[in-house]
Amino acid sequence: MAGNTFGKIFKLTTFGESHGKAIGGIIDGCPAGVSVDFDKIQYEMDRRKPGQSKIVTQRKEPDTVEFLSGIFEGITTGTPIGFMIHNNNQKSKDYEHIKNSYRPSHADFVYDKKYGFRDYRGGGRSSARETAARVVAGSIAKQFMSGVQFNAFVSGVGELKLKNPHLVNNFSSVESNPVRCPDPKMAKDMEELIRQIRKEGDTVGGMITCVIKNVPIGLGEPVFDKLHAELGKAMLSINAVKGFEYGSGFEGASWRGSKHNDLFNTDGTTKTNYSGGIQGGISNGMDVYFNVAFKPVATIMQDQETIDRSGNETIMQGKGRHDPCVVPRAVPIVEAMASLVLADNFLIARTNSIIGDSNKI
Amino acid sequence: MAGNTFGKIFKLTTFGESHGKAIGGIIDGCPAGVSVDFDKIQYEMDRRKPGQSKIVTQRKEPDTVEFLSGIFEGITTGTPIGFMIHNNNQKSKDYEHIKNSYRPSHADFVYDKKYGFRDYRGGGRSSARETAARVVAGSIAKQFMSGVQFNAFVSGVGELKLKNPHLVNNFSSVESNPVRCPDPKMAKDMEELIRQIRKEGDTVGGMITCVIKNVPIGLGEPVFDKLHAELGKAMLSINAVKGFEYGSGFEGASWRGSKHNDLFNTDGTTKTNYSGGIQGGISNGMDVYFNVAFKPVATIMQDQETIDRSGNETIMQGKGRHDPCVVPRAVPIVEAMASLVLADNFLIARTNSIIGDSNKI
Amino acid sequence: MAGNTFGKIFKLTTFGESHGKAIGGIIDGCPAGVSVDFDKIQYEMDRRKPGQSKIVTQRKEPDTVEFLSGIFEGITTGTPIGFMIHNNNQKSKDYEHIKNSYRPSHADFVYDKKYGFRDYRGGGRSSARETAARVVAGSIAKQFMSGVQFNAFVSGVGELKLKNPHLVNNFSSVESNPVRCPDPKMAKDMEELIRQIRKEGDTVGGMITCVIKNVPIGLGEPVFDKLHAELGKAMLSINAVKGFEYGSGFEGASWRGSKHNDLFNTDGTTKTNYSGGIQGGISNGMDVYFNVAFKPVATIMQDQETIDRSGNETIMQGKGRHDPCVVPRAVPIVEAMASLVLADNFLIARTNSIIGDSNKI
Amino acid sequence: MAGNTFGKIFKLTTFGESHGKAIGGIIDGCPAGVSVDFDKIQYEMDRRKPGQSKIVTQRKEPDTVEFLSGIFEGITTGTPIGFMIHNNNQKSKDYEHIKNSYRPSHADFVYDKKYGFRDYRGGGRSSARETAARVVAGSIAKQFMSGVQFNAFVSGVGELKLKNPHLVNNFSSVESNPVRCPDPKMAKDMEELIRQIRKEGDTVGGMITCVIKNVPIGLGEPVFDKLHAELGKAMLSINAVKGFEYGSGFEGASWRGSKHNDLFNTDGTTKTNYSGGIQGGISNGMDVYFNVAFKPVATIMQDQETIDRSGNETIMQGKGRHDPCVVPRAVPIVEAMASLVLADNFLIARTNSIIGDSNKI
Repeated sequence: MAGNTFGKIFKLTTFGESHGKAIGGIIDGCPAGVSVDFDKIQYEMDRRKPGQSKIVTQRKEPDTVEFLSGIFEGITTGTPIGFMIHNNNQKSKDYEHIKNSYRPSHADFVYDKKYGFRDYRGGGRSSARETAARVVAGSIAKQFMSGVQFNAFVSGVGELKLKNPHLVNNFSSVESNPVRCPDPKMAKDMEELIRQIRKEGDTVGGMITCVIKNVPIGLGEPVFDKLHAELGKAMLSINAVKGFEYGSGFEGASWRGSKHNDLFNTDGTTKTNYSGGIQGGISNGMDVYFNVAFKPVATIMQDQETIDRSGNETIMQGKGRHDPCVVPRAVPIVEAMASLVLADNFLIARTNSIIGDSNKI
Repeated sequence: MAGNTFGKIFKLTTFGESHGKAIGGIIDGCPAGVSVDFDKIQYEMDRRKPGQSKIVTQRKEPDTVEFLSGIFEGITTGTPIGFMIHNNNQKSKDYEHIKNSYRPSHADFVYDKKYGFRDYRGGGRSSARETAARVVAGSIAKQFMSGVQFNAFVSGVGELKLKNPHLVNNFSSVESNPVRCPDPKMAKDMEELIRQIRKEGDTVGGMITCVIKNVPIGLGEPVFDKLHAELGKAMLSINAVKGFEYGSGFEGASWRGSKHNDLFNTDGTTKTNYSGGIQGGISNGMDVYFNVAFKPVATIMQDQETIDRSGNETIMQGKGRHDPCVVPRAVPIVEAMASLVLADNFLIARTNSIIGDSNKI
Repeated sequence: MAGNTFGKIFKLTTFGESHGKAIGGIIDGCPAGVSVDFDKIQYEMDRRKPGQSKIVTQRKEPDTVEFLSGIFEGITTGTPIGFMIHNNNQKSKDYEHIKNSYRPSHADFVYDKKYGFRDYRGGGRSSARETAARVVAGSIAKQFMSGVQFNAFVSGVGELKLKNPHLVNNFSSVESNPVRCPDPKMAKDMEELIRQIRKEGDTVGGMITCVIKNVPIGLGEPVFDKLHAELGKAMLSINAVKGFEYGSGFEGASWRGSKHNDLFNTDGTTKTNYSGGIQGGISNGMDVYFNVAFKPVATIMQDQETIDRSGNETIMQGKGRHDPCVVPRAVPIVEAMASLVLADNFLIARTNSIIGDSNKI
Repeated sequence: MAGNTFGKIFKLTTFGESHGKAIGGIIDGCPAGVSVDFDKIQYEMDRRKPGQSKIVTQRKEPDTVEFLSGIFEGITTGTPIGFMIHNNNQKSKDYEHIKNSYRPSHADFVYDKKYGFRDYRGGGRSSARETAARVVAGSIAKQFMSGVQFNAFVSGVGELKLKNPHLVNNFSSVESNPVRCPDPKMAKDMEELIRQIRKEGDTVGGMITCVIKNVPIGLGEPVFDKLHAELGKAMLSINAVKGFEYGSGFEGASWRGSKHNDLFNTDGTTKTNYSGGIQGGISNGMDVYFNVAFKPVATIMQDQETIDRSGNETIMQGKGRHDPCVVPRAVPIVEAMASLVLADNFLIARTNSIIGDSNKI
């Protein structure tokens, strides 16, 4: 498995299974000189952590990060930043019932086939617990690009959907409700829906929108590494994600060009922004925005028919502590992955052209 | 610009501007021993080329590929495959009118800002002409994985959309109509719509669905390089693409888990396939399918207000030979990028576990 | 600093400063199914650790490895292997005297200039303590390729040099003397020389030879990633290394072709092996052997003139616990880096050609 | 074969066999805005080309480069630079005699074993003809870093060796003799030796020294991608190279630390430069210098015993047009590879630290 590194210059490599000793990672390529605010990192971790509200899993994981290297006297030194988060809540026996069976729509079956082995405890490496490491790295990336604002929020839960979420401009309410929806009325409805679905022992999918403001012009490397292609890969690498669209997205596919084109103002900004802040794969200075679709959590509190490792039919019991809907906790993960993409492209963009005296670094 | 390489083992690097001497590329990492059928390559090129029907651009580009290395006596040798396609139809003066102005929703503005320079002839590097090189490489990737079938087709043009396109199982009609839609009736309607829109001097977006059959179990590298994340990046790197979804996609985001989960048959296949053939980022042997949204072509045959390099308002005339809708010609490009992703992951998967005698390669 | 990862498929990323909390790393791409013998890992660590004999630094660092992920029930699962080694012997105050001054021929000056910051404690990231992480990963690489034998040993200390070290075939004495020289008589002399030099408060350079047996035919990727080019980079990335030669090396540069050519036996082996087991960058099945030159340790127990951060002249006192000669402890590091190169190329070689049914992974 | 790309940001990918249609490459990541002097490129090509003097191979290859993309109106645009060199002198029948046999100390045997196929014409991909593409890219890299001077020269032919070649400071005579040795007297002797050896139907090895002046402080990425490790890999990737040493090199391995340490001047330069301009893997502003050992050319004008593909003994005739000694023509190749390494590290170094306003690219 050689797919545990993300980024080219600002690179994150992660390790860890949900029920192993620890998860963690190494951030390589973070520039020297970034002042690290550890409270900000913990704040992001708390947004992601289980047990933070009634509508998420009630597992208790304090998720405190221990930094092992790369930061000296509060400032990044340019050397790799090693960090880890201990797994304190390892209840392996909770997973005895899935040891020899495959949970439907989980990764159990494919891991077993691919590697010939499986760490069955809570999904092992395929667990979303791995994303905690992304949030750590993303928070440092944000602090490096302190002028850029990453605003992700929940724009859909089940059939409840915000209209034109990319036009949301007031993000002040996002953190004031457990769903992380910027519209308080809709947030209430979504919360109610999630409670209802949990009662039914079921789960539900949802959508997250992210609006990034103050993106410098010129980020993104054509042709294969277009900024939106990297953002798309980043989002699709998050557990449970089934779709990504930016700018006009799937809806724009039914439009006419005469409607879709963004006309220029004389300062280079555009009158509309159906492009989603990216043209030809390169940021144009307008808001970068995109939607991410999450499927319903596969672990439901209902018995399901399934098979064991030998192909015999069996029943998978629905038990354990799981989220009825992932999107509230996935908001900081979306922001983290977006910030990793931008930080990487931000640094790469420094190499695009000769600057002043070409013999100076 | 360091983003012109795609893949990790089976790697394509491309070069070329739409109005330079030639475009082309280097395929590195193609295994030795693949018998190359040059007719198949030309067949794919013909599916992408301009002028192939009345509903696409009427430019004439024969697009014949010249192979320069890596194939000896019809068989790949394991060395890099260099190839080029001459640009025979260079009418640079067609582009004098855009030399100092930025076309709306094109990459003109951002290239100029990013690099401080711009090859204004036909979009230069940002032109979709670059995708011809992808089709060459993709055809060789397909020939390497001869047992896998890549079936892309047009599932939407403007508001005309196929229902449940991923369930299409008969692809025999795709090449029998100029739109490349598998439903002959719908194909007719789409063709008519495109003709109408062309008459109006306008353009329209569309959607392509791709269904890949006979995918081996075990392709895809968690956690960041999940198979669908790589497919998503591949598709989003194609010109004009605004969205990617696989399996249940955006629609699945509104479902319940009890509906969404794919239950197993005793042979490891699943009764439904909302997962889109991928679980935890790894192929499970079921059909891999996904949708790709394309925006309407930005060049319309209407005058548009815009700005020049100095920020002065000016009028961009609508002229030249352009597609009213890109999706018919983008079908082979989608297949090409999908085959590059699978070929790369196919080779990487060989390194996943010890095999028999661990001291044998 | 984006240079902390080694390898393409079998990849090691390391972190940690000599006086931070811990050092460690992540091994990504290790195949699933390798049985891990932890005693073997500790054995290699003990060969590298300080304080193991009278002729090395007397620092006490137990260097026990804690594995955090990727190994389940004693077997690699294919997921990333995270590990760490706590730094128990952090005496930062030992380094107060170098806080504002640059030690001659150390990395202090360049780190400060490059990053604008410096973790001055014991060299920080530039310390050879980082190589402990390489030894951990190298031991797992060795266990993966259990049929290949890596035999490194000391072939030179100061002016004392073994003749034709690549012809050494009996490695049984290497571990029976503190210098790790296979010739007991020479080992005695070298040990005596190192004791003498230590008494003088000085240090001395040396040479390590490595002979790798049972290398499969076909490892190494032309043209830039030739096997010996990767081995060369690997060795040159070890602290204090100034030179690398393989096969006939520098001496062969003065020979005639008629002497240098290795003639074939009918089984494909060669009568001589001046090629060093590699032709055209690809292993040919003969022993791979090379020499690595190490400079004398820069920290000497003598006062030296130097400058401080402001460019003022100052005196650097010679104190602390340091090795008079690094080569005895560098033997396992050379083997570790060699095994990482071979493991990576071993896996890459699996992708070189079509195998049987090209639709099987 | 996935080893045909060199560099991380300033990347060269090459293709081509010695007797295919063409060789060439793609330079990706060259910054926009570099004025390209095509005469300088041709000048470097002429230094490498066959037939340039009486002591090199008498093949005629004009080696003119055709640029296909990435340069517009004489200036790099930031897009990939595609280029090719036609092979005009393809005499495949010259190689019929080696079609089924393996030339001793050539790559014939290992290519056949690794790939199961072999382009036997003149060594195919393993021919040093591939290095012409490196010289093209290297010349552009030099033009990008116009303030840095790359001075390679021949410092050894057979047993004839310059003393302290790294102290050579006058390079004016290098191009005035066919051997490219800066000492006119030694050049004469070397030329005579090569003529003599050619008459004997034999070949001879040699050494090249390279002294790079005006290297900025701060190039090189610890820990694995140290500047000298990258230079070492670059040199070892050149055909026929058997060894690399920098600074004090192998000789320094026998010194004492008290002699080897480079003491500082108050301006940060050092009184001696045994470090070879690199400390801890990072350039310190002093001259970077290194030696490269080349083995004697394997093709000799004498009959040699060898085996055919079936393992039968046979005689390999010595014929064709080959160099009696490669080092005179390898001088521009050494410079090219060195300039590629520096250009890449030059760009990477721009990402090392925050600069002024961290929100500006």
